[in-house]
Amino acid sequence: MAPQDGTAPRGATNGETVTIARPQDGIRTGAEARQLFRRGTYNGFTHGFAPGFVQANLAVLPKDLAADFLRFCQLNPKPCPLIGMSPAPGDPSMAELGQDLDIRTDVPMYRVWRKGELVAEVADIREFWRDDLVAFALGCSFSFEEALVEDGLELRHQTCGVNVPMFRTNMACHPSGPFHGPMVVSMRPFKPADAIRAIQITSRFPAVHGAPVHIGLPQAIGIADIARPDYGDAVEVRPDELPVFWACGVTPQAVIAAVAPELAITHAPGAMLVTDVRNSRLAAL
Amino acid sequence: MAPQDGTAPRGATNGETVTIARPQDGIRTGAEARQLFRRGTYNGFTHGFAPGFVQANLAVLPKDLAADFLRFCQLNPKPCPLIGMSPAPGDPSMAELGQDLDIRTDVPMYRVWRKGELVAEVADIREFWRDDLVAFALGCSFSFEEALVEDGLELRHQTCGVNVPMFRTNMACHPSGPFHGPMVVSMRPFKPADAIRAIQITSRFPAVHGAPVHIGLPQAIGIADIARPDYGDAVEVRPDELPVFWACGVTPQAVIAAVAPELAITHAPGAMLVTDVRNSRLAAL
Repeated sequence: MAPQDGTAPRGATNGETVTIARPQDGIRTGAEARQLFRRGTYNGFTHGFAPGFVQANLAVLPKDLAADFLRFCQLNPKPCPLIGMSPAPGDPSMAELGQDLDIRTDVPMYRVWRKGELVAEVADIREFWRDDLVAFALGCSFSFEEALVEDGLELRHQTCGVNVPMFRTNMACHPSGPFHGPMVVSMRPFKPADAIRAIQITSRFPAVHGAPVHIGLPQAIGIADIARPDYGDAVEVRPDELPVFWACGVTPQAVIAAVAPELAITHAPGAMLVTDVRNSRLAAL
Repeated sequence: MAPQDGTAPRGATNGETVTIARPQDGIRTGAEARQLFRRGTYNGFTHGFAPGFVQANLAVLPKDLAADFLRFCQLNPKPCPLIGMSPAPGDPSMAELGQDLDIRTDVPMYRVWRKGELVAEVADIREFWRDDLVAFALGCSFSFEEALVEDGLELRHQTCGVNVPMFRTNMACHPSGPFHGPMVVSMRPFKPADAIRAIQITSRFPAVHGAPVHIGLPQAIGIADIARPDYGDAVEVRPDELPVFWACGVTPQAVIAAVAPELAITHAPGAMLVTDVRNSRLAAL
């Protein structure tokens, strides 16, 4: 979920500019990004890699939970927009997102959870892979943020170089089997006319959280203090701005953590699955 | 601009219900409505006539002002969405809105203005018609209100049976020749999630004011007191609601009044031009 690069070039002293090659330089497609990550030499954030291509949240679960989780995604498409899934338990491919994609090696950094506890952060999950695991790829806000920026809108958290602020709400997700919990939302402040434009733009992208779920009245969705996010970093909401709230991919992560499965694997924050699908191809219109 | 019927059936006393035939009963198309109005026997509001068909604001100006006004509409499409125009000065037809349409007789009630002063309210403008007059038909909020109601949203002013509240703003229209002035907006309160839905729905209808121009912060657009509209009637904005503001067809009326042309003719408030164009055909999507 981290929007900033992990590898920004440092400014030089003495008035000189030193250009430092960045890992994302020259990486133009999802396939190129995955080839780099597969080699294991880059384990950082994926923001800025393969601009224009969809990046996804990853969740891997044992098959005895997969059907209920799939149903949870179907019931809660705004926080859990499913864009890819293992073709069968144990199969590490996901051809709809990339012909050569291997879900065990192609994410820069993974987190491995046992009974809700983080037990490992690794660049490769082949040693944890099992014949009963099912992987889910869920759309992420990078895609709609790219569309907002291309329209000339300011994303405050990007301006400030911090993570987008995220909040637990009092809006319950529709439960499915053991999966239940509140919707987590991300917040971006906009002037009213820009908020209207942002609603229009993100409405075109239902596969990456779509239109906002709330605007303007944080208390109404259980947010007591807009300056104290539950995840990410606080950003200023100015007097001439409204806070605009989108369903967030942290929702399924929190829901899975609450179930505390015997084994679960996710991407590490900000280290996403980079796909071969263009953001524009997710636009409904 | 009046949303209520001028001819609502009265409730009867003694627990009985008396059904009173209403003029709009059985009027299913714009052509049928215009035939009724042309006979001169009905001079009231057009709301409820020919459901599903576009109703329009009317402005008639001498041709020496028409080019500047046309440019004003082109520069300000949200308050002045032009959907029809005389094919030539003096020609009372407007075939794009109705094959048989005669702009001199087909509106239930007109207002005639000389140098900004209301000089007549008449059911027929043939006696005022001249070879140099040009008529403009501008989209009106009835079309998008119909789409909002069909989606299950409540329009507070309809619930209360009053006119929609309208406000002069501090947002200047783009000037054209003598035509200039502030944008007038209409306000409808919604809960935040419904406001987002209303933005989506009205975005589909650019020819009838389109998406809102503002949401949530009335002071930011020069509205000091949301309870004191400049036109229409006040409606309650509840604590869990946001006021949502759309560009309003009163804008061109106010702009024309300020120019005080030697002659101008408009529809009387709420007595619109009923057309043969279906509201759904104005949808961009």
